[in-house]
Amino acid sequence: MDCVFCKIIAGQIPCSKVYEDDNVLAFMDINPLAEYHTLVIPKEHFEFLWDCPAELSAAIGSALPKISRAVQKASGSDGCNVLNNNASAAGQAVPHIHFHIIPRFENDGVFTEWPAKQLAPEKAQQAAEKIKTLIDAE
Amino acid sequence: MDCVFCKIIAGQIPCSKVYEDDNVLAFMDINPLAEYHTLVIPKEHFEFLWDCPAELSAAIGSALPKISRAVQKASGSDGCNVLNNNASAAGQAVPHIHFHIIPRFENDGVFTEWPAKQLAPEKAQQAAEKIKTLIDAE
Ligand SMILES: [Zn+2]
Ligand SMILES: [Zn+2]
Repeated sequence: MDCVFCKIIAGQIPCSKVYEDDNVLAFMDINPLAEYHTLVIPKEHFEFLWDCPAELSAAIGSALPKISRAVQKASGSDGCNVLNNNASAAGQAVPHIHFHIIPRFENDGVFTEWPAKQLAPEKAQQAAEKIKTLIDAE
Repeated sequence: MDCVFCKIIAGQIPCSKVYEDDNVLAFMDINPLAEYHTLVIPKEHFEFLWDCPAELSAAIGSALPKISRAVQKASGSDGCNVLNNNASAAGQAVPHIHFHIIPRFENDGVFTEWPAKQLAPEKAQQAAEKIKTLIDAE
């Protein structure tokens, strides 16, 4: 498996570890967007969140509050983004699920874009029904 | 409670619902960044992820794969961002925990910023130890 995060999990590549349990590992991002930028990953390899078993993504979800709480305290930040990018179109650089915890300060300029549009209620309803049907069909 | 998401949960404000279970509700974002932009929220009110009980954030984590899988199929997108903003400094607009699922297409220009820096190994180690100590102290 030529996956840098699997090699970190296996101890073949070093990391600066902040947290570990049976299912989850957290360590410092070496290309951070801010001081204390931390990555949270499942110990089992899946490329995309939509391929992740529910139990494993639950384990990630379970670990996020305590890790983000500590990142928040360590950094003294005003807030944080918790961000999981899936596929290169979404900015994913390592093909192993990871959640970024990115400390944020007012007007830090890390992310400034939020190109929101308006969505008409009938369009929203159509979109919701399409998604709901796909979830129910699983 | 003057929280628009709590009012949606209580049925006092309509939404275009895509998923619901005992702990989690998902519905269309009415100010989307892309078609099929979906929000996933806990049914209990917490403002920030770091205040969320682990069991509740596990329930959110558990629901994310199936919802993102359906959003992905419905939108035909190349990928998606799963994004949780905490505090106004991080772009949080509604003070109730929410995870955005944002479908992404190659070169869609929705998010283009990733101002990464390099982190020296000894700095990474210091940061990790500070965070780890805070987690262990809980
Ligand atoms: Zn891997
Ligand atoms: Zn609320």
